[in-house]
Amino acid sequence: MPYKFQPGKTYMMPTHFGPSLGPRQGEGGRKFANLDSPKVIQRSVSFLTNREQLEELLPEGFEVGAEPVVTVGVSCMTELEWLAGRGYNMLGVSFPAIFNGKEDHVTGSFLTVLWENLADPIISGRENLGFSKIYCEIPEPKVYRGETHCIASWLGFKFMDLKIKNITQLTPEEVAALTSKQSGDGTLHYKYITKTGEWSSADVSYAVLTPSASPNRVVKEVWRGEGTVQFHKATWEDLPTLCHIVNILHDLEIKEYRGAVVTKTVGGKDLSDQRILR
Amino acid sequence: MPYKFQPGKTYMMPTHFGPSLGPRQGEGGRKFANLDSPKVIQRSVSFLTNREQLEELLPEGFEVGAEPVVTVGVSCMTELEWLAGRGYNMLGVSFPAIFNGKEDHVTGSFLTVLWENLADPIISGRENLGFSKIYCEIPEPKVYRGETHCIASWLGFKFMDLKIKNITQLTPEEVAALTSKQSGDGTLHYKYITKTGEWSSADVSYAVLTPSASPNRVVKEVWRGEGTVQFHKATWEDLPTLCHIVNILHDLEIKEYRGAVVTKTVGGKDLSDQRILR
Amino acid sequence: MPYKFQPGKTYMMPTHFGPSLGPRQGEGGRKFANLDSPKVIQRSVSFLTNREQLEELLPEGFEVGAEPVVTVGVSCMTELEWLAGRGYNMLGVSFPAIFNGKEDHVTGSFLTVLWENLADPIISGRENLGFSKIYCEIPEPKVYRGETHCIASWLGFKFMDLKIKNITQLTPEEVAALTSKQSGDGTLHYKYITKTGEWSSADVSYAVLTPSASPNRVVKEVWRGEGTVQFHKATWEDLPTLCHIVNILHDLEIKEYRGAVVTKTVGGKDLSDQRILR
Amino acid sequence: MPYKFQPGKTYMMPTHFGPSLGPRQGEGGRKFANLDSPKVIQRSVSFLTNREQLEELLPEGFEVGAEPVVTVGVSCMTELEWLAGRGYNMLGVSFPAIFNGKEDHVTGSFLTVLWENLADPIISGRENLGFSKIYCEIPEPKVYRGETHCIASWLGFKFMDLKIKNITQLTPEEVAALTSKQSGDGTLHYKYITKTGEWSSADVSYAVLTPSASPNRVVKEVWRGEGTVQFHKATWEDLPTLCHIVNILHDLEIKEYRGAVVTKTVGGKDLSDQRILR
Repeated sequence: MPYKFQPGKTYMMPTHFGPSLGPRQGEGGRKFANLDSPKVIQRSVSFLTNREQLEELLPEGFEVGAEPVVTVGVSCMTELEWLAGRGYNMLGVSFPAIFNGKEDHVTGSFLTVLWENLADPIISGRENLGFSKIYCEIPEPKVYRGETHCIASWLGFKFMDLKIKNITQLTPEEVAALTSKQSGDGTLHYKYITKTGEWSSADVSYAVLTPSASPNRVVKEVWRGEGTVQFHKATWEDLPTLCHIVNILHDLEIKEYRGAVVTKTVGGKDLSDQRILR
Repeated sequence: MPYKFQPGKTYMMPTHFGPSLGPRQGEGGRKFANLDSPKVIQRSVSFLTNREQLEELLPEGFEVGAEPVVTVGVSCMTELEWLAGRGYNMLGVSFPAIFNGKEDHVTGSFLTVLWENLADPIISGRENLGFSKIYCEIPEPKVYRGETHCIASWLGFKFMDLKIKNITQLTPEEVAALTSKQSGDGTLHYKYITKTGEWSSADVSYAVLTPSASPNRVVKEVWRGEGTVQFHKATWEDLPTLCHIVNILHDLEIKEYRGAVVTKTVGGKDLSDQRILR
Repeated sequence: MPYKFQPGKTYMMPTHFGPSLGPRQGEGGRKFANLDSPKVIQRSVSFLTNREQLEELLPEGFEVGAEPVVTVGVSCMTELEWLAGRGYNMLGVSFPAIFNGKEDHVTGSFLTVLWENLADPIISGRENLGFSKIYCEIPEPKVYRGETHCIASWLGFKFMDLKIKNITQLTPEEVAALTSKQSGDGTLHYKYITKTGEWSSADVSYAVLTPSASPNRVVKEVWRGEGTVQFHKATWEDLPTLCHIVNILHDLEIKEYRGAVVTKTVGGKDLSDQRILR
Repeated sequence: MPYKFQPGKTYMMPTHFGPSLGPRQGEGGRKFANLDSPKVIQRSVSFLTNREQLEELLPEGFEVGAEPVVTVGVSCMTELEWLAGRGYNMLGVSFPAIFNGKEDHVTGSFLTVLWENLADPIISGRENLGFSKIYCEIPEPKVYRGETHCIASWLGFKFMDLKIKNITQLTPEEVAALTSKQSGDGTLHYKYITKTGEWSSADVSYAVLTPSASPNRVVKEVWRGEGTVQFHKATWEDLPTLCHIVNILHDLEIKEYRGAVVTKTVGGKDLSDQRILR
């Protein structure tokens, strides 16, 4: 007898071995609370660029938000419940945007691309959530003489350097003030899956939102400082699957740096509140 | 101005940086001929198991083929054009199956799962082709005293050993005879993508076929020998995203080994003939 | 003109490119202060074993110390000055021992083996310091539901599991008391280098000491808890360079566990006080 | 009872677990024949440089040979007996040199540095043989549109590119002629081990020779072509243990390329004929 999909369960390819195991579904379908974990250190650098350059990175229905400021963030995550306590690292590029749909009108941070150094969350993040996750190597940051240096590479070709220095820690009051400030409705993405055999058509094509609420996420410490970020021009031979992305990021004009932020947080959510925008 | 999807081009997330770069679309949309590359060494071991155990691995519309023989194959690929000459390795588990659709009635090899040790082909293989590709580490095989030993692991947990020995090379005539033998209509898969926010629903859910024709693929050398394969029982802590798959493969009864095959081939295809079965 | 060795400088192979760069000699010969770095988290588990089994691991001139208690420790080090802010991990196995030389009579901790996951400190540690450093993979520990799990593997073969749970943090007073307690004269090692061409003779063969003083090392936090450690029996095929070591560690009887300790420290020394024992 | 060193056996740190396991001593002291393995593909590029620049890379007692031609070679080795059938890769830089000792007068190829991507052979090669082996990442070469591209990196910083194209295969007669040509007495090295605690003194300091004879090594195929090689300038922050080496190699003037060679060989020796030069 062929198997039947169990009702109420999430599946991912291969579907043949039962419901998938991932961030939103553990053994026997159990959920992960994300209460005292993961532990995350995020290091980000922001810069002002041209509104026109960012507009060209937005699908239809979207427009650039209040100010064309790009944030490049490197996150090191440990103690992830759904990975039985392992961790991985991420590199994201985002900017403020507004989505004007037929039903939904939301403002938030548009996540243009999110590199991760582990395939498992890439797969579930793309297919379940519509995150534009792709793969690269993201080693632990180096810290030397007060400067933190993050890099990203693909099969040995380094395509990004992010450096942060002169950081000063915020007081608990400053952290509290920062946390209470609403940063919009959440994170905006565009989910897209090619239709097999009709290579320029889509099986899936819609905007999605990660709502900003994350009640279990506690900001432990925040520092502010100075930072720089560089994406390095690459040939197709250097980065045969990524060069188009990296070169557009390289070409973004850096009109003015807007500082660096280092944030330590504990706790999170399983992103099961991710929703389609219409 | 937001970007528009260019007609006739394939996109993958992130779609914001232009048409994707991958196996079926290079810079400027060019195709890859796959004429003198890739170079592939495939090492496989087959065994007879219970028809009932395989039936449970088939989605509706499929049935087990002539004989319930599972083939576990490790492929080492080099000189891939679309990766500008790099390579990667694969571990697949398949068995003969028949698909009875409304329109299509095809026989072939059902690929239950295909592990690969590089994220880029996993992403395009899943989303574009509907291959059940997932990630693991697949180091180069060891060869010692006439025995070849392939392993697969995930973040340090080894879950498979495949060993081949006593191989003898086929004559060119035997190779020619082997190649001319039709092995069915191709490779069968089931493509499935979760619908965001409706976690037990699907955005995409259909059977797909990789047609068997591959005119540029030349079989250079073939050996036959003896082999064994073992999947190792794992806890959720060992393999929090893979244990359900590995443990079902571990539980397949090995009633009788059906020998090992080592094949060296050159050339291939871009799989743009992949098609939906109805 | 052939080069001459510069007086007052340390050299390592290759000597042809000038004085070596390493933990005790940076660019232009500068020293590293190790004041606010490295940052180290050490997780260790101890157990009582048989005095006789430990005696067999000691070279002549050494004897087992007060109690035959083995400590297995995994250290994760970051922000190393001499690596320009990078880090690496270590796995050491030690027990109390006494060295009775012609001139020196010292007690301390005998470091039987120290695995590290980076070749550069292995080379300088062996040749300059006489540490018995060898290579293995030591991923970041997993932390799940209050249990920390450290593993070690070599080319995919996992040979050690160390687990710690139920930890409680020491008060600052307890930490201070712990730190003031002298743990002997330091760490004991045996340096040995084969003579080329006379394969059973030595170019170098002497005991060495790492004195315990480390004035810049500050203990930040300490936890105590329960732990277990297992070395896994290996064949020569599994670990062709390590099986003799791992199997002897596997065979050590665990008569009683003596608890686990987690220690966070900042600062250290360049070990230039390492000295030969006579 | 402390252990005694067994007579006739080779030891390496840690000496406490019995005789070492390595290329010249397996389990129970057995030797490795290296008859049908390893399999090696070596890709090398040569160039004419300044005699003066090479003289500065030679220790006392050495002089540059007939012509100041540097050869940079990348070797991919598989099926190594002493690693139970595993493999690893190497990157060496050598040039012709003459050693004039008190007793020995030999000509050969001076191996200035040999990078390897596995720590185990680095340790035994340095300590037992006096090879100037150090660590870096050496991925499998890429082959695209007739060009082979080898790279080397250290913790993500790429420091070398070697490219070979337009290769033509030699006839069996040409290969035979090439093989019979004596290339001098062997490979020259300088072994050096720092004395612990006397940081500018040496425990070991002597020239060594790898004799050229290797009766079990069979040259299977040879190609000649064109090639280029580049070492990339690095800061101390990029390569804190290697920058002095890489930058001197970067500064070698390339007056004229002398072609590229690709060689496939099977078989070798355990290098137990390595000897000290006097």
